[in-house]
Amino acid sequence: MTAAGASERTYPVQISVEGFGDRVASRVADRESQLVLGLDPDPALLWPGAIEGVGSAGDSLAPPAARAALAVAAHCELAIDAVREHCVAVKLQVACFERLGAPGWSALAEVAERARERGLLVLADGKRGDIDVSAAAYAQAFLGETETPFGLVDGLGVDALTLNPLLGVDSLTPLVQCARGRHRGVFVLVRTSNAGAADVQELGLAGGGTVSERLARIVAELGAPGTGAAGLADVGAVVGATAPHLLQTLRDQMPHAVFLLPGVGAQGGRVQDLEPAFAPGPGGGLLAVSRGIVNAHQLTGGPPAVAAEREAARLRALVWKLAS
Amino acid sequence: MTAAGASERTYPVQISVEGFGDRVASRVADRESQLVLGLDPDPALLWPGAIEGVGSAGDSLAPPAARAALAVAAHCELAIDAVREHCVAVKLQVACFERLGAPGWSALAEVAERARERGLLVLADGKRGDIDVSAAAYAQAFLGETETPFGLVDGLGVDALTLNPLLGVDSLTPLVQCARGRHRGVFVLVRTSNAGAADVQELGLAGGGTVSERLARIVAELGAPGTGAAGLADVGAVVGATAPHLLQTLRDQMPHAVFLLPGVGAQGGRVQDLEPAFAPGPGGGLLAVSRGIVNAHQLTGGPPAVAAEREAARLRALVWKLAS
Repeated sequence: MTAAGASERTYPVQISVEGFGDRVASRVADRESQLVLGLDPDPALLWPGAIEGVGSAGDSLAPPAARAALAVAAHCELAIDAVREHCVAVKLQVACFERLGAPGWSALAEVAERARERGLLVLADGKRGDIDVSAAAYAQAFLGETETPFGLVDGLGVDALTLNPLLGVDSLTPLVQCARGRHRGVFVLVRTSNAGAADVQELGLAGGGTVSERLARIVAELGAPGTGAAGLADVGAVVGATAPHLLQTLRDQMPHAVFLLPGVGAQGGRVQDLEPAFAPGPGGGLLAVSRGIVNAHQLTGGPPAVAAEREAARLRALVWKLAS
Repeated sequence: MTAAGASERTYPVQISVEGFGDRVASRVADRESQLVLGLDPDPALLWPGAIEGVGSAGDSLAPPAARAALAVAAHCELAIDAVREHCVAVKLQVACFERLGAPGWSALAEVAERARERGLLVLADGKRGDIDVSAAAYAQAFLGETETPFGLVDGLGVDALTLNPLLGVDSLTPLVQCARGRHRGVFVLVRTSNAGAADVQELGLAGGGTVSERLARIVAELGAPGTGAAGLADVGAVVGATAPHLLQTLRDQMPHAVFLLPGVGAQGGRVQDLEPAFAPGPGGGLLAVSRGIVNAHQLTGGPPAVAAEREAARLRALVWKLAS
């Protein structure tokens, strides 16, 4: 490690000169894209090239978890390389890596690093939420670092992490603070893309509004001190593309939040319904598409990389036009 | 692997003859304890014996994460051995392992295995929650196994996992089904132990009741088909010991749920307020205590293991008497 590296560790707050909202705005402008490649690797649906690579390594005596993790990482890198020119970020579904145990976590770190090297923002979709002391531990795992008797242990170092706010403001604060200090961000679940979202998030409150609207207010309040020159905050919101009727209301309540928008494609959401997300500007919404891109070849035929590239190009153009 | 082992893998459903509720009831009766050792290992607060062990291994060139994970595992094993005779289960705070990356996940698996060998139930406190396909991936990671082109990859194999229900019933179902098929369980957050719980969970609903009460109804409905002979279901509830005024109401709404009760000790909850949890019987409540046991020596002085053992014995007797 260089002396400069050691010095950066002593003052870990200054990684970037811009806050997360400004970073999103400038990346979106530079790359002319709001598209986020969602990576939810299913070991049963990997691109053939990923499996062949592991097979030909001659390492057939390694445990299944280690080999599967190598293949998962190779699959993600192939997908990233196929669509990177059309994307501004990747979103890694942590569950899909955790099911492969420790080798899966290594694959998660490797994929995050590869995406970062290719100029993409890295979002970890972990939907974490816990009481303060445990929330601080998740902050260390994903956004910060951990002091140990044996030296500092770096976390994953992602640009943003998705959070579940059911435990309230004091469960979010340690993560927001850690992210803000490092010019990173968080995306808080406000209205998810699944049908079951209605069970709890759309419950009407005695004081008016819904649970989602209450969550939106929390997001707006937490993000206010972290709003940058571009008008975007470092506390974003997950708002499913499957509930377009709620989008305008939630945008009104969270005027500066970056909306992370899952649910287009496999889950039935449509890009053309997402216009309110972009009220603060082109960086106001990030469209996260996983299966719709990575499994595009299942609909179109042909090599997976070609089908993915074509679908990513289509989605990117569609969103860019809508947001401009 | 033996032929019998291979055969078990082909039919993974039959691991135990009893459902999770019955397993909890019989373990509590056998061990005469409702005490759950919470393990939230902080690398800055490990028991001295754990650090010495790693130091003396002469492996000082290993990366900090690997050494810290060894020390964390050693710490957890020392704590388990100090208090095991007083406990029925351990609760592993997943965040504290994830902050050490892949070596941390290996430590998590090792600690789970050691606790299981000592006859303790293993609860993973991950508070996971995601849309159906990702919930299924978390089920594979913690409760089941994953098919890959390279063979089956076993998950952590814990007895139960804590879940966050903000995403609704369809986000819980894959985990409940996976757990039920393996005679394992889940604990759904209903009313957490932190002050911020009031921000969302205690919101009053237009139709009457609170968000927590709505969550309680979901727990009761999901658990009904998994209620065993002892009157306990395989869908339990996390109910903080810090809100005793809610305990009777929530018990009325979830008559068969095992209550996982955090919040005694460091967070201010008191054992004597927990009586309603035990209405279904001695297995109706599990008292999870982390810092109150593991850091007991900070209050009492003396060796950590001795202080922990004394505090665990005290808490175990207090709860057992209350529940009998």
